Amino acid sequence: MTPDIIPPGPLVALDYVGIAVFAVSGALVAAEKRQTLVTFIFFAVVTGVGGGTLRDLLIGAPVFWVNHNMTLLVCLSAALLVWLFTKARAAEKALLWFDAVGLAAYAVYGANKALRYGVAPVPAFAMGVLTACVGGIIRDVLAGEPSILMRPELYVTAAALAAGLFVGMAIFGMPVLLAALIAGLAGFALRGAAIAKGLSLPSYQG
Amino acid sequence: MTPDIIPPGPLVALDYVGIAVFAVSGALVAAEKRQTLVTFIFFAVVTGVGGGTLRDLLIGAPVFWVNHNMTLLVCLSAALLVWLFTKARAAEKALLWFDAVGLAAYAVYGANKALRYGVAPVPAFAMGVLTACVGGIIRDVLAGEPSILMRPELYVTAAALAAGLFVGMAIFGMPVLLAALIAGLAGFALRGAAIAKGLSLPSYQG
Amino acid sequence: MTPDIIPPGPLVALDYVGIAVFAVSGALVAAEKRQTLVTFIFFAVVTGVGGGTLRDLLIGAPVFWVNHNMTLLVCLSAALLVWLFTKARAAEKALLWFDAVGLAAYAVYGANKALRYGVAPVPAFAMGVLTACVGGIIRDVLAGEPSILMRPELYVTAAALAAGLFVGMAIFGMPVLLAALIAGLAGFALRGAAIAKGLSLPSYQG
Repeated sequence: MTPDIIPPGPLVALDYVGIAVFAVSGALVAAEKRQTLVTFIFFAVVTGVGGGTLRDLLIGAPVFWVNHNMTLLVCLSAALLVWLFTKARAAEKALLWFDAVGLAAYAVYGANKALRYGVAPVPAFAMGVLTACVGGIIRDVLAGEPSILMRPELYVTAAALAAGLFVGMAIFGMPVLLAALIAGLAGFALRGAAIAKGLSLPSYQG
Repeated sequence: MTPDIIPPGPLVALDYVGIAVFAVSGALVAAEKRQTLVTFIFFAVVTGVGGGTLRDLLIGAPVFWVNHNMTLLVCLSAALLVWLFTKARAAEKALLWFDAVGLAAYAVYGANKALRYGVAPVPAFAMGVLTACVGGIIRDVLAGEPSILMRPELYVTAAALAAGLFVGMAIFGMPVLLAALIAGLAGFALRGAAIAKGLSLPSYQG
Repeated sequence: MTPDIIPPGPLVALDYVGIAVFAVSGALVAAEKRQTLVTFIFFAVVTGVGGGTLRDLLIGAPVFWVNHNMTLLVCLSAALLVWLFTKARAAEKALLWFDAVGLAAYAVYGANKALRYGVAPVPAFAMGVLTACVGGIIRDVLAGEPSILMRPELYVTAAALAAGLFVGMAIFGMPVLLAALIAGLAGFALRGAAIAKGLSLPSYQG
């Protein structure tokens, strides 16, 4: 294991996409709740870095945003953009879609980083799922909203699809960039279908 | 400190008991909420490994489920069993009892692991209590339930009894297995009495 | 980086102030909810050490309360004092003021500890803010209260003022003790004004 100040390899873009869109989704929750600019920034940061922070703590990596200024400045910029340019009416719908992009990007990036740190396949898959979902969970819990986990449409499932496809393809030797692209698009497509069509798994009837 | 991929010593069984019963209790909450199978698994994993994960992060141990596949497969099996075989009517009562077993097992195992890592006695006691309670707390917060902490019957107290007895007996040199048995049974008995009889401490009257 | 069992330097007092007042604020929430003594202690510990624990995990420091008994005994004493001497009527108001002292002290101490561990300035600032706010956030989430983050008066802003002033003055070479005094008082004054006068930032109007 080596320090990981600047994430190497071709997936850096996915990481910044994940951070930026989760940061935007955090700021959008603050907008829905008509909070102040400072709370916008707080929500943007917590949502933007929450998932990746948990991932790094779990796999024993240095926490990715601690040794440079850039990550937090991205979150801060996201919060400012939402503050300046969003209309509240648009916020609720936009939130779901930004969250969907973040979910797919983080599921793939998280699983890949775990594999690079030598994590076993099942936990690496779980790392993708957990860390993709944690940003949104923290955001909802802090805002006092019912967690996105409990809503009827597919959510964790989309993260599981992206992380599972990626780990499977990586184990069978597919080039990382191609595997990331396929897995990320598949996860985003499934979550998008869930948002657009209310797609859901059968629920427990006990 | 050494890596701790397979927990050594005679308390391994307690660890797997704690993981499995907390995983079941997480899946039972998903059943009560009539969630999908994927959410069952998510809740089983988060509840099953949540307490031990916090413990390992706090004492600087490698997180126990990251380097092998078994722990997560146990959680997944627990979720599947609940999905296939539980009736919703039975879920609420069963939840309390599974949680009680997990509480006692984790209080003892957590305190023991902390002592093995050279943690001082009071924090080792706290480690047992905190990590025994954290699985259930995360489960309740995610499900949007009032936390089990705030319910009137004894809960933290039972964890404190188990962890406190164990640390005390371990310091005075009692064999670990015997100390674990006595402390775990005492904690489970107290929590069981609280469930069965509504036993509670006097509350603050201010 | 060296183990940090006893925090060095002149800011140790701030650390213990932060721990003690957050512990009191946790116990006061337990009092408001008419909980038992054990729950008082649990809330005192979680609120007292929550922020600093997150800070230490994020910067890769050994968790500060794990290697000695004193910190937890301070939290336990705080819980006992609240249990014995507080009237419920007084609790709500007192809670806000104890929380304000903890907020300012932790913002400064957290930012300073992060700088000492070589964290970059923006994350060091964020570390002060996040860790100052986390104790109160965990306390509110566990108690099922709306998070203090979402209330209208200035809260995160006061932590940001304290952490930001401190990091700025430290970078420009001001003696640490003086910088801590100025920054801590400024943060406390702002939060105090928010409590006393309902001072708030403009909120989002979308």
